[in-house]
Amino acid sequence: MQHVTSTRSALNVNEQRLWQRHIELAHIGGLRNGGTNRQAFTPEEADARRLIARWAAELKCSLSIDEIGNLFIRRAGTDASAAPVVTGSHIDTQPTGGKFDGNFGVLAGLEVLQILNEAGVSTRRQIEVAIWTNEEGCRFAPGMMGSEAFAGVRNLKDIVTVKDSDGISVAEALPALLAATPEATKRPLGFPIAAFIEAHIEQGPILEAANCVIGVVTGIQGTRRFRVEVFGEEAHAGTTPRARRKDAMAAAAQMLVAIQQFVEPYQDDVRFTVGMWKASPNVPGVIASRVLFSVDLRHPSTQTLKLLGDEIGTICRANAHGCGVVVNEIANAESVHFPDHIVSMVRRAATRCGLSHMDIFSGAGHDARQLAYVCPTGMIFVPCERGISHNEAENAKPSDLADGTRVLLEVVLELANL
Amino acid sequence: MQHVTSTRSALNVNEQRLWQRHIELAHIGGLRNGGTNRQAFTPEEADARRLIARWAAELKCSLSIDEIGNLFIRRAGTDASAAPVVTGSHIDTQPTGGKFDGNFGVLAGLEVLQILNEAGVSTRRQIEVAIWTNEEGCRFAPGMMGSEAFAGVRNLKDIVTVKDSDGISVAEALPALLAATPEATKRPLGFPIAAFIEAHIEQGPILEAANCVIGVVTGIQGTRRFRVEVFGEEAHAGTTPRARRKDAMAAAAQMLVAIQQFVEPYQDDVRFTVGMWKASPNVPGVIASRVLFSVDLRHPSTQTLKLLGDEIGTICRANAHGCGVVVNEIANAESVHFPDHIVSMVRRAATRCGLSHMDIFSGAGHDARQLAYVCPTGMIFVPCERGISHNEAENAKPSDLADGTRVLLEVVLELANL
Repeated sequence: MQHVTSTRSALNVNEQRLWQRHIELAHIGGLRNGGTNRQAFTPEEADARRLIARWAAELKCSLSIDEIGNLFIRRAGTDASAAPVVTGSHIDTQPTGGKFDGNFGVLAGLEVLQILNEAGVSTRRQIEVAIWTNEEGCRFAPGMMGSEAFAGVRNLKDIVTVKDSDGISVAEALPALLAATPEATKRPLGFPIAAFIEAHIEQGPILEAANCVIGVVTGIQGTRRFRVEVFGEEAHAGTTPRARRKDAMAAAAQMLVAIQQFVEPYQDDVRFTVGMWKASPNVPGVIASRVLFSVDLRHPSTQTLKLLGDEIGTICRANAHGCGVVVNEIANAESVHFPDHIVSMVRRAATRCGLSHMDIFSGAGHDARQLAYVCPTGMIFVPCERGISHNEAENAKPSDLADGTRVLLEVVLELANL
Repeated sequence: MQHVTSTRSALNVNEQRLWQRHIELAHIGGLRNGGTNRQAFTPEEADARRLIARWAAELKCSLSIDEIGNLFIRRAGTDASAAPVVTGSHIDTQPTGGKFDGNFGVLAGLEVLQILNEAGVSTRRQIEVAIWTNEEGCRFAPGMMGSEAFAGVRNLKDIVTVKDSDGISVAEALPALLAATPEATKRPLGFPIAAFIEAHIEQGPILEAANCVIGVVTGIQGTRRFRVEVFGEEAHAGTTPRARRKDAMAAAAQMLVAIQQFVEPYQDDVRFTVGMWKASPNVPGVIASRVLFSVDLRHPSTQTLKLLGDEIGTICRANAHGCGVVVNEIANAESVHFPDHIVSMVRRAATRCGLSHMDIFSGAGHDARQLAYVCPTGMIFVPCERGISHNEAENAKPSDLADGTRVLLEVVLELANL
């Protein structure tokens, strides 16, 4: 075995293999239009973990798993006492998600391990590929459960009480996930990590528009998420005079429009989305007695995000029109800025690989946000077609994925020999 | 047997029996908070029909059923060649409906038959109690299917192609409904009827506020119903700049608010309700690609209703904000005015019974609207608590139900001996 710190000569990313693994993984929970429905804590996610566990076994890598189901694929280093370098991402998807969001980070990490194996390269630190649990937060919201539990951002005790819309708790769903990889040894939450580096598709249009292959991620935009419940009164649509109506649907629509008008002056820097809307009893002839909707608010500036988010409750109450309204903030994450030495390391790696690159600030949240609280952390972006993500049409070029993996390999090797 | 034309002396409504039948019927599909979920074409509706068929058999009445499942309970008259007088209503409910909407009209009719039996009163015309199929239109929309098919307002061929949200058609659901009462003989749609008279709870607050027991219904308000589909583009909530968003949820909310502002000047005479709202993929982190919502618009003046309804498509398109929008009108019923001689007959009957009464125009649609196209038709309202209907809390006084049945008995007897 030889120590190397650059991939330029000896180490080659197998673009074809990396692409095929994306396609094979996407078959699990695969949808008609090319997308994937593989939500966290479902049988599909368990199947996907088994497939990856099989690939890990072929690489003679060992598996470990922590209490929330974060799964780690470990390639040993020469210094067993040194903290590991960790890469990876997540393999759960949105209900109509794509093939690349999350999956790329995990499969790029696996490719790195395989390249090192094939070239017989040893590293001082062990290298681990993490599959973080429930990044997307669809069945059980909010997401980032695995990385938040690991980083101590949220308490495991609180996380396991979260319920899905059928009333099933994480505590009840967890055993099946843990049982998917019985060969994995138990691992404590929050074990020491030397550094975390996550490869991911951009999920936005910036790299493609700039004709850049590598995004050197400088940080992650802050997010505040709210759950707004509007309580009206069920009544007959034809007989109930306006003065007697408590119409939860009309009130909720006015809240949405009012928030949109409020954030309007902040232009494109602010991201405001109502993605979920559930009405009861939800039939044409009855005035709605209850609407539950989500508010997702993001801004690069933590200060502006605080200012905007602090108004959500006030705006909703001002537009309640006689209905009751309860606004709960379910997530509040400040903007994160990655440490300069990691950002520089990614930038230099892209340069060494001869790849076009630019600094970029992530609009999407990622597990790296949480890891940044507990270890030096960075991210590498590759373009995705038209910036479309969280959509079955999500797409990326095999060559871009391979280039992103080249940069990841460079960075992981450098970190693993520090 | 004796011919009588007034109930004042010989014929007594059994208030206790009438009330108990409401309670017993409400157990089928009964909900936790006292309401009923017994939607049309469900096993619960079939069970309820079997219970009523049992009561009909006890009264030695015969059953007949037509192709759309309208069920008729017949008490023979002395002149078999005379067209029947028909009363009745429906026994399907909203998903969180009450015990009285529809059910009262059927059970009041049954009570009338039983009173006549017990007093040994014969009538020239046969009297029939109709249970019209799918008045509410929840599982299969729009409703009034049975009475519309009977009156020829809608074609049976079109009705049976209507599908529920699982893709099951009326044609597929119908055999189970028809099989619920195998003893019923086949009957053609639209057989001749001498007159139709429907008893119903008001479903509004007017009688209660006026301290009146009987509403002499002069007609039924017109309704237009639309199904609005908004097509956006699924994209990531955090990364997609505003200029690139096609947000179906935000556009739909703006459509609702814009329609509400448009109808605002029409005060309480106009009834505008968005009761149904279905979003896809309906998760917090993804911009909605599709929203389907209902518009229910009513006004006593057919002319005003036309004017308002004709603008719905224009308003929706003007608020699409880059999304696609398809507006389909799924129901358009003009206001109906009942013939004077039936309205007078109800008014005189209430006076003879010594009951407080007032003329009232129905805000809700009823099967009587359709029957009005094919025979002299009228309605009798009784108060319901706080005007609340289409709600588990729907309530009515046993004495008011009995009083409404007294008036129904008077009117049915008069019509049956004409």
